[in-house]
Amino acid sequence: MAITLGELAAALGAELVRGDPETPVAGVAGLDDAGPGHVAYVENARRLEEAERGPAAALIAPPSLQSRRKPLLRVPNPRLAFARALGLFAPAAPPPVGIHPTAVIGSGVALGEGISVGPHAVIGDDCRIGDRARIHALASIGRGVQVGPESEVFPNVTIYDGVSLGARVIVHAGAVIGCVGFGYAQDGEAHISLPHIGTVIVEDDVEIGANVTIDRATTGATVIGQGTKIDNLVHIAHNVTIGRHCLLAGQVGISGSVTLGDHVVLAGQVGVADHVVLGDAAQAGARAAIIGDVPAGAVVWGYPARKRGEQLRIEAATSRLPELVRALQDLKRRLSALEAKLRGG
Amino acid sequence: MAITLGELAAALGAELVRGDPETPVAGVAGLDDAGPGHVAYVENARRLEEAERGPAAALIAPPSLQSRRKPLLRVPNPRLAFARALGLFAPAAPPPVGIHPTAVIGSGVALGEGISVGPHAVIGDDCRIGDRARIHALASIGRGVQVGPESEVFPNVTIYDGVSLGARVIVHAGAVIGCVGFGYAQDGEAHISLPHIGTVIVEDDVEIGANVTIDRATTGATVIGQGTKIDNLVHIAHNVTIGRHCLLAGQVGISGSVTLGDHVVLAGQVGVADHVVLGDAAQAGARAAIIGDVPAGAVVWGYPARKRGEQLRIEAATSRLPELVRALQDLKRRLSALEAKLRGG
Amino acid sequence: MAITLGELAAALGAELVRGDPETPVAGVAGLDDAGPGHVAYVENARRLEEAERGPAAALIAPPSLQSRRKPLLRVPNPRLAFARALGLFAPAAPPPVGIHPTAVIGSGVALGEGISVGPHAVIGDDCRIGDRARIHALASIGRGVQVGPESEVFPNVTIYDGVSLGARVIVHAGAVIGCVGFGYAQDGEAHISLPHIGTVIVEDDVEIGANVTIDRATTGATVIGQGTKIDNLVHIAHNVTIGRHCLLAGQVGISGSVTLGDHVVLAGQVGVADHVVLGDAAQAGARAAIIGDVPAGAVVWGYPARKRGEQLRIEAATSRLPELVRALQDLKRRLSALEAKLRGG
Repeated sequence: MAITLGELAAALGAELVRGDPETPVAGVAGLDDAGPGHVAYVENARRLEEAERGPAAALIAPPSLQSRRKPLLRVPNPRLAFARALGLFAPAAPPPVGIHPTAVIGSGVALGEGISVGPHAVIGDDCRIGDRARIHALASIGRGVQVGPESEVFPNVTIYDGVSLGARVIVHAGAVIGCVGFGYAQDGEAHISLPHIGTVIVEDDVEIGANVTIDRATTGATVIGQGTKIDNLVHIAHNVTIGRHCLLAGQVGISGSVTLGDHVVLAGQVGVADHVVLGDAAQAGARAAIIGDVPAGAVVWGYPARKRGEQLRIEAATSRLPELVRALQDLKRRLSALEAKLRGG
Repeated sequence: MAITLGELAAALGAELVRGDPETPVAGVAGLDDAGPGHVAYVENARRLEEAERGPAAALIAPPSLQSRRKPLLRVPNPRLAFARALGLFAPAAPPPVGIHPTAVIGSGVALGEGISVGPHAVIGDDCRIGDRARIHALASIGRGVQVGPESEVFPNVTIYDGVSLGARVIVHAGAVIGCVGFGYAQDGEAHISLPHIGTVIVEDDVEIGANVTIDRATTGATVIGQGTKIDNLVHIAHNVTIGRHCLLAGQVGISGSVTLGDHVVLAGQVGVADHVVLGDAAQAGARAAIIGDVPAGAVVWGYPARKRGEQLRIEAATSRLPELVRALQDLKRRLSALEAKLRGG
Repeated sequence: MAITLGELAAALGAELVRGDPETPVAGVAGLDDAGPGHVAYVENARRLEEAERGPAAALIAPPSLQSRRKPLLRVPNPRLAFARALGLFAPAAPPPVGIHPTAVIGSGVALGEGISVGPHAVIGDDCRIGDRARIHALASIGRGVQVGPESEVFPNVTIYDGVSLGARVIVHAGAVIGCVGFGYAQDGEAHISLPHIGTVIVEDDVEIGANVTIDRATTGATVIGQGTKIDNLVHIAHNVTIGRHCLLAGQVGISGSVTLGDHVVLAGQVGVADHVVLGDAAQAGARAAIIGDVPAGAVVWGYPARKRGEQLRIEAATSRLPELVRALQDLKRRLSALEAKLRGG
């Protein structure tokens, strides 16, 4: 797309500092990828010098940043401005509106306006697909599923019967929503499957990563709260309730009946044991193994997870463990010598 | 479905205590989801008081439980009764019998009686599909695959050539069975793939979760024993042998050539190193990293995994590590003072 | 296939020791699976005695190995010879050349010679599919994707728009390549998705396991270097650069903007934090949590990951922690007694 620096500044609500507004902008890029004519996003002030040496035509920067060598697009929230600038340069390539002739649509399906259904997609009986929703190729939508308006379901996704997706929900390729939970009753030596007559409710503006699995509830619903974002290969078990605007990074595992408040952040590979409750805005560092409740706002870390400060002190002491063993042996020797001396004296 | 409390008691073989057998039952539910007219399942006695305050019409409970406020359905195995009651209220919605016209069936395929093959499912040459098996939409069954009677293969599953599934096996959406194992020979700096001419044998009554991966053996077979249940996103490598009636929770990873006995239970995110042997009924706590053999009946925990009691003692001592460092420094100071005093004296 | 011991020796460039070259070979197998007439692969010298007692007709062995009871096929690289022998006995079963009538091919697609496209596969507009490439059933290839010659894409794989695969790349079932990365900007309490206008470049001879996820870059490209092999359920985030001939075992997770050199080996369930750099030939033991840079050639282990020797010393000391606590208490008691005695004296 053809756009000038001045037009980009206007589109982002940015203050253009020292740049010629007529300069054409070739694109927008992260610092490592920015070429001549690009507007580059400077993630943090430490990389400013590097950015100034680079070929970029201008930099997206916070209000406090000064540069003697590059034009700046100053905005209060540079990362948000970067997101918007990327949107301007993203190749707009929505799938074509309409239902591909190879798609299989069940009976009693209510299809909204302007929807797109790709090749070989399968939509079961009695579904409701909202306006402008996009069901990509080879997606499997079960019976009685609701897909809200402007939601997008990528290829090879499986949505089981009766699941409900809100508006503007994105489900990436290979994700599975509504599978039966891992719950069994013991009958002699055999494990008897608990029928799962509950469902999954995914609220508005949720994003679900590739190959994620979200199990349906035994009874009631597994709930993913509004605006929550889930990275690839995350597992969410049955009867879980996740609050609003949470972030779950790659390969996180949430056991059955866990409750997460709003704005919870779990870093990569975190695990949460069953029935645990995490309060609003609780955070867990990468690989934390959470086996007990976490109060609102707390930051936990480690295996098992402890409050971050405590865990850091433990890790520091752990690094010194071999030295402590030697110090202890040394003390023991000196003490024994002293005892012998006193006995002798 | 319309059923009375007396009929439900009869169906579950339960003793109805203090309830009117003519009371209509609206449904069955976990305690958190039970509404008026529901029969609720009380997971444990600690939640009895809460259950009595709730709206449920009656409670499924063990023989020992007493309640002054609610009718009880007393059974020796309440969880099993709950499973059966859920089954009574589960919406019976099997896919329609027959082969969807868009399914692609190879040559030489032996199809049993009463099977169901969904839209766009693909079945390769020379497969045998047992009676009443259900192959859902968009499933891919390779060549020469056996699917036993009453087995169910969900959408977007991939079964590679030559794999064998027993009777009543359930494979959830997105699972991949029979992929080539991760084995290479070094040729200079290149890794040369070992052709995997073995297969995967899944015995009767096994359940395989969503997006699970099970690799075929190099030679011989990777075996999943009868009645074993595998949760979502589990990885089972080549040449693994898993016994009967094991439980593998979410995101467990089993390396190559591992052997699990019968009734082994691995909690979420457990990892097992290659060639390790776990005896019958061995158990591992969540996130355990098992790098050596585990005897039958042992319970292990931690990273690396140790016997549970030992690991708990280590974790307790670890929590006190910063305090131990201070105590050690204090001892050192006192000892030095004592030594100085004695030298002085 | 009918082949004699002498012919097999010739095909593998092996020295046949004490065997009759006219002996027919029934197959090749790992030690546990070898039956009469098989040539067995002896993984290491410790299993030689077991191999000699077994039914195998001959053994693939290194030049140094001696056997009084079995003919040997001596080769400098036995594992590579095993790989080649397996290839000789693997059932050659490529999918049929040609495009299945149910496949959906977009407009402007350039199809090479001798390609195979399976049932219900979907190939988007403007793709280039190289000679002899195989696209299996139900695979979804987006728009503008390049698939190099002799590459193989298994069922239910999803490749997003614009991704590039080199020559002889293998993508196993259920893998997802080119999904949007997990990057957000904060706008009030909402998380705003960063449009990802970058791509994924997979170089020649890469193998990607089942249900792996590889995210596209925000700008620029996520790169998987030549000859690298990736096991099942691995997650590779946006903007990652992986060098040549690396090995990533099952369930590894690589965070955003990580850089791996060449010949890096990560064992199962390893996690790497964002922006970390691993030098050439760095190695990480199973479950290592790598939160800082790792120099070339270093071997790390643990949570958090430390150099292997250091981590082993820490683990040994950790095992003795409860004993250290007791020793410390004992010292304290003895020291107090000494102090009291001296005060008294």
